[in-house]
Amino acid sequence: MRAVDIIVKKRDNLELSKEEILFFVNGYAREEIPDYQAAAWLMAVLLNGMSLRETTDLTMALAYSGEMIDLSTVVPMSVDKHSTGGVGDKTTLVVEPLVAACGLPVGKMSGRGLGFSGGTLDKMESIPGFRVNLSTAEFLEQLRSVGLVLTGQTAELAPADGKFYALRDVTGTVPSIPLIASSVMSKKIAAGAQAIVLDVKLGLGAFMPSLGEARALAELMVSIARMADRKAVALLSDMNQPLGQAVGNSLEVKEAIATLQGCGPADFLEHCLVFAGHMLALGGKAKDEDEGKQMAAAALKDGRGWEKFKALVRAQGGEVSAVEDPEKLPAASLVETLAASRDGYLAGVNARMVGEAAVMLGGGRLKKGDLIDHAVGILVHHKVGDKVEAGEPLFTIHANDRDRLEQARVGLLKAHTWSVEQVEPLPMFYGVVR
Amino acid sequence: MRAVDIIVKKRDNLELSKEEILFFVNGYAREEIPDYQAAAWLMAVLLNGMSLRETTDLTMALAYSGEMIDLSTVVPMSVDKHSTGGVGDKTTLVVEPLVAACGLPVGKMSGRGLGFSGGTLDKMESIPGFRVNLSTAEFLEQLRSVGLVLTGQTAELAPADGKFYALRDVTGTVPSIPLIASSVMSKKIAAGAQAIVLDVKLGLGAFMPSLGEARALAELMVSIARMADRKAVALLSDMNQPLGQAVGNSLEVKEAIATLQGCGPADFLEHCLVFAGHMLALGGKAKDEDEGKQMAAAALKDGRGWEKFKALVRAQGGEVSAVEDPEKLPAASLVETLAASRDGYLAGVNARMVGEAAVMLGGGRLKKGDLIDHAVGILVHHKVGDKVEAGEPLFTIHANDRDRLEQARVGLLKAHTWSVEQVEPLPMFYGVVR
Repeated sequence: MRAVDIIVKKRDNLELSKEEILFFVNGYAREEIPDYQAAAWLMAVLLNGMSLRETTDLTMALAYSGEMIDLSTVVPMSVDKHSTGGVGDKTTLVVEPLVAACGLPVGKMSGRGLGFSGGTLDKMESIPGFRVNLSTAEFLEQLRSVGLVLTGQTAELAPADGKFYALRDVTGTVPSIPLIASSVMSKKIAAGAQAIVLDVKLGLGAFMPSLGEARALAELMVSIARMADRKAVALLSDMNQPLGQAVGNSLEVKEAIATLQGCGPADFLEHCLVFAGHMLALGGKAKDEDEGKQMAAAALKDGRGWEKFKALVRAQGGEVSAVEDPEKLPAASLVETLAASRDGYLAGVNARMVGEAAVMLGGGRLKKGDLIDHAVGILVHHKVGDKVEAGEPLFTIHANDRDRLEQARVGLLKAHTWSVEQVEPLPMFYGVVR
Repeated sequence: MRAVDIIVKKRDNLELSKEEILFFVNGYAREEIPDYQAAAWLMAVLLNGMSLRETTDLTMALAYSGEMIDLSTVVPMSVDKHSTGGVGDKTTLVVEPLVAACGLPVGKMSGRGLGFSGGTLDKMESIPGFRVNLSTAEFLEQLRSVGLVLTGQTAELAPADGKFYALRDVTGTVPSIPLIASSVMSKKIAAGAQAIVLDVKLGLGAFMPSLGEARALAELMVSIARMADRKAVALLSDMNQPLGQAVGNSLEVKEAIATLQGCGPADFLEHCLVFAGHMLALGGKAKDEDEGKQMAAAALKDGRGWEKFKALVRAQGGEVSAVEDPEKLPAASLVETLAASRDGYLAGVNARMVGEAAVMLGGGRLKKGDLIDHAVGILVHHKVGDKVEAGEPLFTIHANDRDRLEQARVGLLKAHTWSVEQVEPLPMFYGVVR
């Protein structure tokens, strides 16, 4: 078998065999196939697509390129969640403690933010001392003892995916539904997930702009999971406007803590309970997602979720006192409010612009490896459909630098669109794919 | 400007600006853009195509990546010829002396053979001592003094094209009409060609299988020439069956010599005279291609073409005695004839299979840089449409190795298709693109 023949076959829009996909992925992982051949192949895949069978074979080849974790050695059933990324998406910080508090173990390997989209690891690192570099042995032990883990992906997990991803980033081959689906699912499968609830976000602040693309990605990921003998369900959720109020790492941790204490924003709480319900149903703890949602709401109300969150922080070396007293979390030195200059109904709160303003403040990365400022960010005071009067606060900017604050202000001033007539609120969900 | 944005633009099927193409080509030539980004871009170009304007800008960017030769410093007008490659295509060896003998200077930089397709430099190197590595200064001086040069491309000529070509070869991005056209034309333009006659071959032994593709390539190359202020005409010629009788380097030189001496195969002679006619017309020596053809026929008849060929050999260090007495050219030790096992009309003589048999004998290359045996090859005794009786010779194999001879024989036995009914001869030409 020769790499160039596999490139030519995909270039000519023919279906690759399982053996050809394995040969290409393993050859690239072992550096027997050079970057330039992989780059040509990725562009051919992006432009000509892949069948479900090919995408599943690619997913499994990526997963098996490294360590395969077997969680069933420590827990009979565990559940995982994955979000395709968005602005203000601190869902994991609330959902996973709630689900774990209901007795369903949650082992999750998360990622970092890039561009306008935040990342769970960055948020958790706002908590002084919190470690996100657990070894596989630590991961398994904590899953067994605490029932909840939230760490970074180990280098041993799906290394071929990491290598392909770095190449896709510099060759314009990121936005391919089969490549995105296989990348996500390979890591989930290698990390041992038995049941996975996928949050496929769509809209201005998501990587999938349209419902059609989001649904295609969701259907593909769920189908891959089924072919790999894992349970999965995907929710199509809105990311046209930011989720909740807080955007920025420390601010989002504070909002998650408030939510676990019963005083979070209504939209964000509802989003979390729906997800927790699906996770409990998929993991077999609830008969369906409605029962699961009620179980999660109960765990929130009686404080078991909040206790589980503190147990997570403690287990991974974080300062529990800092989450008990969030004033101790990183805080910005400059806080300024942007007020409405007019009356009207909000027709749009552009999530992408808000995410980009957070990056301008230093709260996100332009490129991998950039350092970030955990303290900075934005509070978003209104949702689409709200009636706002002139003078009411629209955004509160938390900054550590006057120039950056000015830049962010300029960006945020363009983020709203207005209507003189009443506007319907945006839906939270657009559908479920099973 | 960033390379990745240019890749993304072409991936999304948008037209690149001249500045973007220059940035990409120069960046790649200077090794500021890595192979993997160039590979992704080439695949996007292959799959999404390029407009004439983009292809012309690419051609000029490739040409200007190195030395630009100005032939008008030594001759008022000169003409060049380019063939897209085929089996038994020794046209250059006959046409160029005839045209030069008519007083129109011919300066040509040729290539080597690869796969089933032969190369002019390999053929000329059958002549002991013949040099194909002239410097630019030697090229210009010989064009002035002899009016005829046949050498290899210097490393300084369109170096970006050489770099892209090597990458295309290993990334499945060779068969793209805009990439082929810009590669050919960039070298012709950099080499200073003022008028170019293009031989675009089509059929089983050509890189363009169909008339549609060949015509598209021809039209694109002629349009590029026009946009670059060069004169060009393209002939669409048949390459379903080998051209003439001889396939293999030394055998082809012998056939070219015989043709220049008035005793070559009829089809090959006609092919050469038609080309010479177009070259003389395009270069302004004849009022049209018919008059040019008559001029070339006269130069053949009175021996001026043959004298010019010898002057070429002498000027480039070749042994004139070896072309005067072709028995001195490399000859194979094993000569064997394949005879027809049946009566019938020949419906096909597969040029590709004959070319591949010549490679099996050692007369061609599987990959760049392979050494070749100039002595070996095949004589093809019949054309499509011929009536053949059982026992008549079909091929004569010239080999230097018994095993290779056997392999070639097996390949050649499959090269003919037969008919019991009369078959029309193949056309020599399918059209002219101006």
